[in-house]
Amino acid sequence: MKDIDSVIKDIKNLKIQGAEDVALSSVEAFRNSVKPDSNDMEKLKGYAEKLISSRPTEPFLRNCISYIQRSFDKEGDDILNSCDYVIDHIKDSRKLIVNIGENKIHDGMSIFTHCHSSTVVSILKTARDQTKDFVVYNTETRPVFQGRTTAKELADYGIKVYHMIDSAGRIGIKKADIVLIGCDAITSEGRVINKIGSELFAEIARKYDVPFYVCTDSWKLDPASVFGFDEEIEQRNPHEIWDKSPKNVTIFNPAFEIVNPDIVTGIISEIGVYKPELFVNEVQEKYPFLFLNQKI
Amino acid sequence: MKDIDSVIKDIKNLKIQGAEDVALSSVEAFRNSVKPDSNDMEKLKGYAEKLISSRPTEPFLRNCISYIQRSFDKEGDDILNSCDYVIDHIKDSRKLIVNIGENKIHDGMSIFTHCHSSTVVSILKTARDQTKDFVVYNTETRPVFQGRTTAKELADYGIKVYHMIDSAGRIGIKKADIVLIGCDAITSEGRVINKIGSELFAEIARKYDVPFYVCTDSWKLDPASVFGFDEEIEQRNPHEIWDKSPKNVTIFNPAFEIVNPDIVTGIISEIGVYKPELFVNEVQEKYPFLFLNQKI
Amino acid sequence: MKDIDSVIKDIKNLKIQGAEDVALSSVEAFRNSVKPDSNDMEKLKGYAEKLISSRPTEPFLRNCISYIQRSFDKEGDDILNSCDYVIDHIKDSRKLIVNIGENKIHDGMSIFTHCHSSTVVSILKTARDQTKDFVVYNTETRPVFQGRTTAKELADYGIKVYHMIDSAGRIGIKKADIVLIGCDAITSEGRVINKIGSELFAEIARKYDVPFYVCTDSWKLDPASVFGFDEEIEQRNPHEIWDKSPKNVTIFNPAFEIVNPDIVTGIISEIGVYKPELFVNEVQEKYPFLFLNQKI
Amino acid sequence: MKDIDSVIKDIKNLKIQGAEDVALSSVEAFRNSVKPDSNDMEKLKGYAEKLISSRPTEPFLRNCISYIQRSFDKEGDDILNSCDYVIDHIKDSRKLIVNIGENKIHDGMSIFTHCHSSTVVSILKTARDQTKDFVVYNTETRPVFQGRTTAKELADYGIKVYHMIDSAGRIGIKKADIVLIGCDAITSEGRVINKIGSELFAEIARKYDVPFYVCTDSWKLDPASVFGFDEEIEQRNPHEIWDKSPKNVTIFNPAFEIVNPDIVTGIISEIGVYKPELFVNEVQEKYPFLFLNQKI
Amino acid sequence: MKDIDSVIKDIKNLKIQGAEDVALSSVEAFRNSVKPDSNDMEKLKGYAEKLISSRPTEPFLRNCISYIQRSFDKEGDDILNSCDYVIDHIKDSRKLIVNIGENKIHDGMSIFTHCHSSTVVSILKTARDQTKDFVVYNTETRPVFQGRTTAKELADYGIKVYHMIDSAGRIGIKKADIVLIGCDAITSEGRVINKIGSELFAEIARKYDVPFYVCTDSWKLDPASVFGFDEEIEQRNPHEIWDKSPKNVTIFNPAFEIVNPDIVTGIISEIGVYKPELFVNEVQEKYPFLFLNQKI
Amino acid sequence: MKDIDSVIKDIKNLKIQGAEDVALSSVEAFRNSVKPDSNDMEKLKGYAEKLISSRPTEPFLRNCISYIQRSFDKEGDDILNSCDYVIDHIKDSRKLIVNIGENKIHDGMSIFTHCHSSTVVSILKTARDQTKDFVVYNTETRPVFQGRTTAKELADYGIKVYHMIDSAGRIGIKKADIVLIGCDAITSEGRVINKIGSELFAEIARKYDVPFYVCTDSWKLDPASVFGFDEEIEQRNPHEIWDKSPKNVTIFNPAFEIVNPDIVTGIISEIGVYKPELFVNEVQEKYPFLFLNQKI
Repeated sequence: MKDIDSVIKDIKNLKIQGAEDVALSSVEAFRNSVKPDSNDMEKLKGYAEKLISSRPTEPFLRNCISYIQRSFDKEGDDILNSCDYVIDHIKDSRKLIVNIGENKIHDGMSIFTHCHSSTVVSILKTARDQTKDFVVYNTETRPVFQGRTTAKELADYGIKVYHMIDSAGRIGIKKADIVLIGCDAITSEGRVINKIGSELFAEIARKYDVPFYVCTDSWKLDPASVFGFDEEIEQRNPHEIWDKSPKNVTIFNPAFEIVNPDIVTGIISEIGVYKPELFVNEVQEKYPFLFLNQKI
Repeated sequence: MKDIDSVIKDIKNLKIQGAEDVALSSVEAFRNSVKPDSNDMEKLKGYAEKLISSRPTEPFLRNCISYIQRSFDKEGDDILNSCDYVIDHIKDSRKLIVNIGENKIHDGMSIFTHCHSSTVVSILKTARDQTKDFVVYNTETRPVFQGRTTAKELADYGIKVYHMIDSAGRIGIKKADIVLIGCDAITSEGRVINKIGSELFAEIARKYDVPFYVCTDSWKLDPASVFGFDEEIEQRNPHEIWDKSPKNVTIFNPAFEIVNPDIVTGIISEIGVYKPELFVNEVQEKYPFLFLNQKI
Repeated sequence: MKDIDSVIKDIKNLKIQGAEDVALSSVEAFRNSVKPDSNDMEKLKGYAEKLISSRPTEPFLRNCISYIQRSFDKEGDDILNSCDYVIDHIKDSRKLIVNIGENKIHDGMSIFTHCHSSTVVSILKTARDQTKDFVVYNTETRPVFQGRTTAKELADYGIKVYHMIDSAGRIGIKKADIVLIGCDAITSEGRVINKIGSELFAEIARKYDVPFYVCTDSWKLDPASVFGFDEEIEQRNPHEIWDKSPKNVTIFNPAFEIVNPDIVTGIISEIGVYKPELFVNEVQEKYPFLFLNQKI
Repeated sequence: MKDIDSVIKDIKNLKIQGAEDVALSSVEAFRNSVKPDSNDMEKLKGYAEKLISSRPTEPFLRNCISYIQRSFDKEGDDILNSCDYVIDHIKDSRKLIVNIGENKIHDGMSIFTHCHSSTVVSILKTARDQTKDFVVYNTETRPVFQGRTTAKELADYGIKVYHMIDSAGRIGIKKADIVLIGCDAITSEGRVINKIGSELFAEIARKYDVPFYVCTDSWKLDPASVFGFDEEIEQRNPHEIWDKSPKNVTIFNPAFEIVNPDIVTGIISEIGVYKPELFVNEVQEKYPFLFLNQKI
Repeated sequence: MKDIDSVIKDIKNLKIQGAEDVALSSVEAFRNSVKPDSNDMEKLKGYAEKLISSRPTEPFLRNCISYIQRSFDKEGDDILNSCDYVIDHIKDSRKLIVNIGENKIHDGMSIFTHCHSSTVVSILKTARDQTKDFVVYNTETRPVFQGRTTAKELADYGIKVYHMIDSAGRIGIKKADIVLIGCDAITSEGRVINKIGSELFAEIARKYDVPFYVCTDSWKLDPASVFGFDEEIEQRNPHEIWDKSPKNVTIFNPAFEIVNPDIVTGIISEIGVYKPELFVNEVQEKYPFLFLNQKI
Repeated sequence: MKDIDSVIKDIKNLKIQGAEDVALSSVEAFRNSVKPDSNDMEKLKGYAEKLISSRPTEPFLRNCISYIQRSFDKEGDDILNSCDYVIDHIKDSRKLIVNIGENKIHDGMSIFTHCHSSTVVSILKTARDQTKDFVVYNTETRPVFQGRTTAKELADYGIKVYHMIDSAGRIGIKKADIVLIGCDAITSEGRVINKIGSELFAEIARKYDVPFYVCTDSWKLDPASVFGFDEEIEQRNPHEIWDKSPKNVTIFNPAFEIVNPDIVTGIISEIGVYKPELFVNEVQEKYPFLFLNQKI
């Protein structure tokens, strides 16, 4: 089991990737430094802050840690219990989402996906396990080609993949029966934040009347958005796009874009399949503690 | 001056690129093998066929050569004259298009372009020569990054360039006052065939009400389209996209897509600036010989 | 009072039609075979299954029966009570929906409807009872001309009806102030499943900015959709469309299509008038038992 | 050879159908009553008027007869020649349109059509003759089921047909690679008038980016539209829709609707394939006599 | 402190304007006529009715008064308490909305607004207090030029304003990063009723992908809309538009139009930022008493 | 008959208004200073330049004067003849346009118009002369209320007018069967330049499928646009919008906006009714001299 500092290091150098894996490793490392009885609370508080600030724009990690923070004025056992609750939530949700999402896959389907989402990949593999017969269209997803990871994982699992550049994605969507993508964050207005290109493909899916589903743990909802705080769109390193760009050339490298809820058919999470607006409500009802202590 | 075979070789290995340069080199090489008096007409006919078949899907080269072919039953001098006519057309048109297109650039503008078009680059450089003050947004244009060539040429000329991945192109278009792109072919229905992504960006430009101009020599109109012959969309080598793609992954690599005329603001050619429908008519009136001897 | 087998027979040969009437007859027949004290539970369970499977794709009947099934481990009186609860629900809701929907009709209005919905017809008749002055545009609704039933029932009640073929429905919508249609099922994503043509007319209504309302008992929400189970679109008998179609001709006869919630102005049900997303939530809050024991 | 009165009778009772057959029979009958030398010109003028008024809203017949009328102040031989010119035009155009249109059909295609157009059917049969492999989606086309005629003729010719009700036409268009329809009239604004439903399907084709072609003799252009005269939309007999409709029910039965040129990919006529705007120009240039003597 | 009759007079002659100020003055005046112990209840009931009918189409005032009416069968102290609750609600909400809305304003932004909303003005002033750097585009808002009030208040506060006629509003929206408007009423379907022009600008904002926020106290939700009662669109005095319009000219002067929820990014109220559909639910949960005693 | 200087003065202070009246007065004044035999050509050239520069952005006046300029190297009689040609063109076209346009008006129609166009008013009055029964919806057209002039002229002529503010124009269009507007300039791309608001209303007309016609003399086509010269959008005096606007408020007052040809149903001019693309071609063919001597 890694300690907190090495987990943070692995997060920063991308050895640990994906919001769920980042959160799971963080909470496990944190749990490891908690004692069942008395604790150095200043140290624990510092750890919590440090973990949150390793991914400042990611609501999932923040929600996980802040759940634990709410037990800081209780006993050591309570803190351990709250860590366990979070760990169980992550693991159980993963299974539920895959089982629910898998119901959306039927024989003969063409599925479109963009970028790499471990949730989407798991759904497709599970559908394959059940001998469902389908094909996948996917984009390479510039700048760092996560689409190749998706293509490779699916192809290695025996799923037929058609792979194309991002600007040809429309061809894939036109042939698709359903679009499945992952998610980085969701706001209280039901807006879905995901890899650059997602809004573009959502609009194309709406034009061609292809249902568009977002597959995600419900804790990616950002409680601060209720009070008007906007997700900041991360600008990533220009070198991802062009290593030695000439003078006079400025590189734009936004990591994400925002999908409006009216063009999202549904969010597939561990609490069910709902339109984004209703999804937000279901999260508020099922996990009210996520919304406690928010500041305006 | 190269001979026909080495020109064809250079076309095939892409040492000679761009429809205009391909045609110019081809016609110059052909002219070189014509004698002022008597000619071995079988040999010349063979050359003409060979050149046309070096780029079977490109109407510009075909139109240039077929103009010359129409003089094959005349004297050697006539054949030379028809070669000169074509060479002059290519060179004169280039200047005219740039002069006309340059009128569309005004101080303070943001211009969006996709892929690499030597005509668009020349327009922008000429505008810069006239000390017009503007910036350019451009895409990298996967799979072979022609957008980098565009960015580099413009930046080297002192023009400020903002460069982005294809799926972020919408951000550039939203900020742009005008879109300028090149062209591979135009049909009698006014449909413009250009690099994959062009239709996507044309639709986005229409959505955001940004005028969308196609900059091209008017001889890219395909006369065969009058009789219902469709341009075939070239499928290029999968290795351009992913060098060693895994088994079970099929690569789609269409070179082009088709832009409908109702979302093209105008075609800027040597005969003026016209909507595609009217452009087709103007070409028919100005160059009626292009449409002779077409077969249904 | 009919017994279960004759009710099922009448459902299958369409002597009993319309989701509400089907459910009411089924529950009444079931109630008839329940005794106040001890019951042969295996027999009752068999009846329940049999009734559900008489209309396997219809959530309304399924919801009604499964409410009763939840009392199967209790006393005979409890089972009778649960039957009565369902019967009362159906009857009371009918009145409430009509009263609420009637508020949407104003003097001078033109109302468009498609197919035949007894709820919509009742709303219009009630508005007429209150001497409201309005006209109705309706489609004939191929293949089985349910629109004629609608037109006849309304005209016989003294309401002026303009009747047209389905592909001319746009003319009616353009003149209409409001669209009212019925409903076969609603999913947790707020998607409304109704007679083929409904999505088409919903999109036209949105284009022409005509409010589009779905009138329905709220129990048509399918609880299984929360867990990703899709409504299957029934393919009906080709003979409905063309009795003796030639060899080499395949008939498509989908019964339904799916309307996305963003183009539905509201669902008028016994619990009020809500956008589909919110409607789903209100049903979950008011009738939580509908969602019990669902399997993923 | 029938005389003029029996031709007019056959037109009115629909024994002769389709704009081209109506015109051909009319001109042949007229020719029959012309003598090579001297003629009773009052009688001939009366015949011409009578024929035109047998189909007052049809520009094709009107254009054919008015071509002949222009020779009324010349010799009998000239009148016969002008009849022959028209007869040849109709027959030659028919072949040319089919040959051009057939170029649009490729192996593996799905083609959507609505109503019955003998031109479209001929194009498809000719493609089939050339062993092209394709399938057809078509609508039944209420109220008089002309789509069944289309389906039957194609199926009998060995072409696979998928047949559906009009309000399910969207499903067919979504699967189609191209839409081909016929035409009743075209205005100087490039607006295409065709069977009710055509505009609806043109808009759906545009939404799904399926090219939409109108197949027609170019003489269906109405020269009076240049001067602002609108085509009147014929209201046909209500009994076509509902034989014994109840009191209080008014039947709308418009025969046609108008397709805007921006959503028509091209008009396939004997003069080539052009966007409607350009088509109008080509007709004016090729057949200037059609536009003579028009009154404002 | 004014008495009820003079408050009603000031409301009618527009000395008191804006839904919040109208309600605050009304409740304060009402409170003034309540005694802590015994009251002449008939008089109080009369006052309540009188106040409500001073603005019959305004749900905010109605909701405030009807909250108080619910205490009419209790003691005088309870009535005073319910008045205080309403007064506190209005004042506290005002601060909360401003604080939440202010979070949406970032440095470098352009904000578009239409008409005059004291809530929007307060949000912008508060953002300015925090030294945020932004500019505002606003319309003059015919017929009574409330946009000039907005422009003046902001400009006097040191905010840069670009001002334009209503039909040029599109230019402002195209340059804007966010649209903020006020609100007169919201229905249970999530439809927002606001000054004429609001729907137009909401659709333009959606086209240009500019987030569109409605800033309002949540009590503007009309509980009667749950039962199908439509907000009536007030037709105002023609003289507002044209003082001495000629005979034969009829003036249309609708005060409001209705914005569909799918094109509203979010409603910013004291309970947070939510899509309209979810907003309705949150109001129902937080203030269930607003929905009591509603009649169908 | 006024002299040139007083005509120019009247143009500048708007005593002479409307492109046609401006041109007519200018040419008549110019004609007045031409002698049948020998002329001081330097003086005439000066007059011509002076007139053109009195309305630098108006192609109609420029086209009229430049027609005359082409006769400057001929005899005095020729110059007079060319003046007469222009005067006749203006007067004859006016009648033709009205006669053609009037054909578009039918009994029972609702017509929408924006701003004031003497051509549109004449068409409507002529339709009224022929006892056609119709009503007109029109906007007030801020900032200088030209819509009131339109309303008054029509109402005084006995035509029923419904008048509304610009931001309510959508209500009028939704009820209209046809939209008629005037025109300031047309480019070679078929783009129509007219009063601010025109593009907005053209898009709304397209959404609601209401045919949108531009009524104009064909000489408003700007020949310089063929070579890429853009019409400059005039920014008018801020005082037209707000007389004493506060400090910190900048007024935008663009006079015109540009309507794309794909949403213009037709241009009604003296040469007939054509889509803008075809209109440009017809002008080039009918008046080739307008395009002579243009500079790139």
